[in-house]
This record gives sequence, C-alpha cells and structure tokens, in this order.
Amino acid sequence: MIVADGRAIGRGATQPGGRPHAEAVALAEAGDAARGATVYVSLEPCAHRSERGPACADLLIAAGPARVVAALEDPDPRTSGRGFARLREAGIAVDVGEGAEAAARSMEGFFSRIRRGRPFVTLKLALSIDGKIALPSGESKWITGVESRAHVHQLRAQADMILVGRGTYEADRPQLDVRLPGLEHLSPRRAILTRGIPVEGWATLSAPEQISSLHDVNDLLVEGGSGAASALLTADLVDRLLIYRAPILIGEGRSSVGYIGLSDLAAAHGRWRFADSRPLGMDRLEVYERVRSSEA
Amino acid sequence: MIVADGRAIGRGATQPGGRPHAEAVALAEAGDAARGATVYVSLEPCAHRSERGPACADLLIAAGPARVVAALEDPDPRTSGRGFARLREAGIAVDVGEGAEAAARSMEGFFSRIRRGRPFVTLKLALSIDGKIALPSGESKWITGVESRAHVHQLRAQADMILVGRGTYEADRPQLDVRLPGLEHLSPRRAILTRGIPVEGWATLSAPEQISSLHDVNDLLVEGGSGAASALLTADLVDRLLIYRAPILIGEGRSSVGYIGLSDLAAAHGRWRFADSRPLGMDRLEVYERVRSSEA
Repeated sequence: MIVADGRAIGRGATQPGGRPHAEAVALAEAGDAARGATVYVSLEPCAHRSERGPACADLLIAAGPARVVAALEDPDPRTSGRGFARLREAGIAVDVGEGAEAAARSMEGFFSRIRRGRPFVTLKLALSIDGKIALPSGESKWITGVESRAHVHQLRAQADMILVGRGTYEADRPQLDVRLPGLEHLSPRRAILTRGIPVEGWATLSAPEQISSLHDVNDLLVEGGSGAASALLTADLVDRLLIYRAPILIGEGRSSVGYIGLSDLAAAHGRWRFADSRPLGMDRLEVYERVRSSEA
Repeated sequence: MIVADGRAIGRGATQPGGRPHAEAVALAEAGDAARGATVYVSLEPCAHRSERGPACADLLIAAGPARVVAALEDPDPRTSGRGFARLREAGIAVDVGEGAEAAARSMEGFFSRIRRGRPFVTLKLALSIDGKIALPSGESKWITGVESRAHVHQLRAQADMILVGRGTYEADRPQLDVRLPGLEHLSPRRAILTRGIPVEGWATLSAPEQISSLHDVNDLLVEGGSGAASALLTADLVDRLLIYRAPILIGEGRSSVGYIGLSDLAAAHGRWRFADSRPLGMDRLEVYERVRSSEA
C-alpha cells in the first residue's frame, strides 16, 4: 500500500502465478503521486530482474518514495537484504520489522519453499473428543457441524494443493473444491498419495517425500484419510495440525491416525505446541504447530 | 458466613459426615453478635430437626439475624421452601438467588443424590490429540505432564469415591490417593467395577447401575480404564467429562473408550456440551457436560 498525506493512493497484491509483484501493481495505481510517499510492504522488495519483469527495488527507486516500511526481509538469496540496500543507496528511508509476525504467518508457505525446498504442510482432521473419524461401519458424515465444514472450504481456498490418500479417493471420490460463493475459482489443485496407477486430473505422489517436487506449491493441505496422515507424520513432513473437534464420543470406531513410528511415549513429546483454539459452532478448532528446534 | 458492620463475625462449613451444618458452626463462632447481622449461605437452611441436631432454621431464629442471603433453595423435600418460610415468619428478611450458578456447581453431587438418587459422575481421561491412552504395548506413563497429574490429585480430594475397572486394578494396582501436602486425609474411598471376586478395602460394583446403592457418595470420579469408561457411558451415567489433553500424537495405540452403544453418528450428537478449556502446563483441560433435556 502506498500512502501520501494519510491517504492510500495505491494498493496491490502479487497476482496469481507470482507476477506482477504487489509493488508493481500499487505503483501503477499511484502514478506520479508516489514521489515522496510512504510504501508499506510485507516482504522486502525483490532486487533481481527476471524475464517476467523488472526488480521491484528498481521500480521503487524510479518512483521515488520518501520511505519504505517492510515487515520482513526476503529469504530468497537473490534478494535477501539487497533489496533494502539498493533502496537506501538511492536515499529512500527503510524501516523493517513492523508486523513481522503476522506477515510471517501469512507467508509461511512461501518461506517453507525457499528455506526447505518443500511446501508448508497442514494436516486437517475432523475428530470426536476421543479422536475417532468414523464409526466401525465407516460412517463419517458428519462428525463436525456446518460451521466447521464451511471453515474447511476457506482453508482449501488458501491452499495451493490438497493431498488425499488412495483409500479416501476410492471411498469418497472427493471433489475437494471450494464451495463458498465468490471463491469457487480458488479451488486448489488435487494430489493423491499412491503407489498405484495415477488418476486423471490429479497429481500423483508415490511417497510423502515427493512433496519437494511440487515446485509451484507453497501451501499443501492434507485432508486424509488415516493412511495419508500417518505417512506424512511418519516422514515428519507435517508443520501444522488443524483439529476440528466435535463434542461427541464415538468409542469403538475408526482411528484418525495409524502407525507413525513411535518407539516409546517419550518420543511423542515435545513435537507439537498448542497454538490456538476457538469455537466453530458447536465444534472447536484446535491448532497445533510442529516444534522444530533447528528453526526456533 | 455471618457479617455485621462489614466484618465477618462467623464462618462455617458443613463438617465431614454431614453434621454439624455450616450454619451451626458459624453461629457458634458469632455468638450474640449474630443478632441483627446478615447471614450468607449457599443452601436454604434446613427446616427438619433430626437425631443428629436441631434444624438450622430454628438455630437462626434463636440467634436473630436481620437478614439471610441464600444462593439456592434446598431440593430436599423435607426442607424445600420451608426453611425460608420459617425465617420469614420469624421476621427475618430472606434473599434468594445470588450466586446461584456457582453454588449449584459446587453442590451438584448433593443435588444429584437428592434428585436422581445417584452420585454425580465425572469421567476423567488423559488423552493424546488423537484420543489414545497408551501405546500398543500398553505404555501410558506419561501421556500428560506434571501439572495435569497434580490437578487429578485435587480432583480426587473433591470426590467421595473413585471407581476403576478390573483391568485397570489388575494392571496398575492404583493407590488413587491424594498426594498433595495437607490434603492426604481427603483421599477418597475406592470402588472397583467387576463381576469377579471383590477386592479387600474396595467397594465392589457388579454393574454401573449399582452406583445408586452408594448412599453416602455424592461425587463419584471414574478414573478408567477403557472398560469402566465404556460401561458407564453405555449406561448413560456420566455427567461430566474431564479430558486432560496432551499435545502429542500417538497414532497406533490403545483407544480411550470402547463400544458405547452407538447405532449411528446422529445418536452421538447433542449429548455433550463443551463447557470450558484451560491450559495445564503443556496440556489442556477440556470440560464437557452431559446435556439432559429433562433438566434443561
């Protein structure tokens, strides 16, 4: 966002596919009024020219704002720190760090891709109090209520790709689309985890580790079932758990997660941190984040 | 509590075994100063003289306070409403209802006994995120952390009796005592649910319905295992669930609850209401209450 005299004179978001960047969009709107203004960005403006467009640092220097306020430095080594340096050399004041936490949260998929070479992985489970996903018969419609199911559609709209296991594909033939009015076009691509034959219209992964090959996927949502969840957890590739917890007991029934490689209980501890919970109708959404000591 | 000129001049709690009542204790402390004072009680003063002591209504009338403030009317038919009527006839002002919800909560065991002829039953489960209580090997020490386990000892101190199944008794030979300094004397009596031979020092119930025979038990705490929990749930005799939820995934392992008589998922809904959750160290305590439409 570009602000002059307390008024927003240009807004922008990076467009689907990654270009143009938010800065280019906002500067185009502001035009000459950007001179002397303040530019607010989530991420450090890029310093590398590409075939797909000029570097944002160059665009900004040409537009001549007085100040750039950024939440985060770009982890991409082609820019990291260089974008800010170029702006400062051109006499533009640069402030970094305001709103860093919120920005990092919204860009964790992008950061995961840059830093770890794989998407940020969210595992979604709809569970009873006692952790079941279905009756012994397989009946699972519905564990959670309408509010939870609507929330899952929002979640899908924010994901780049959704992964399910072969069993869930065969049993449910899920659409996995976004059924929220106005957001249907955000339905993500679909992938199936299987060593068997591929499914038309679906990406195929034969092992959890192959998520690294999904180069244009920043946010991967794993929607089940138990087999896919267990495989991703065993490979330690899940970064966040979203538990949609219904206020019901099922007792005898199907468990949400199978063997995940635990040798003893001590190995289970210290891996997950409770991050948040909130009501969704009669249900509750519980958020757990993977604790990775190397990343603090 | 008896208050005169803004100062507490007498305090009392009903003593172990049920007598003397709180009013008698507080009036004895206040002595003549009770005349013209205000008396605060949780429950309507009793109107029935018994072999174990005089009626509290008579004691109060003799002491001559100006006002009695009570949270709740006594559900016991020997008193219900009569205690208040006697006080009013004697010229004492009576206010009822202040703090009613908190008082009802602290006396739910007493109320359950009077109204339903059975104790108020709390089922405690220490669970992983995915609802497991142990690894496949049976290893269950520990799912939850020290804060949760200390909280369980408080819970035991508030219960009149603790019930476990035969399996848990045989596997753990649990002490079920209160190990909090100064509260050891509050260790509750112990009961075992078994059709087999009784255990010395333990009450024996051969079926869940026999909790009605525990005439001096207002608060019954069910501590496990899966068999006892399932039996009580199938008989619909659980009033409150306390879930000590550890931030761990177990996957393949032992489930907390077995068959509880569900024919379909619809039957599972509408029975439990999420009441509260709060952190206990790294764990969370989740409280669910049984919704019984007849009691609103």
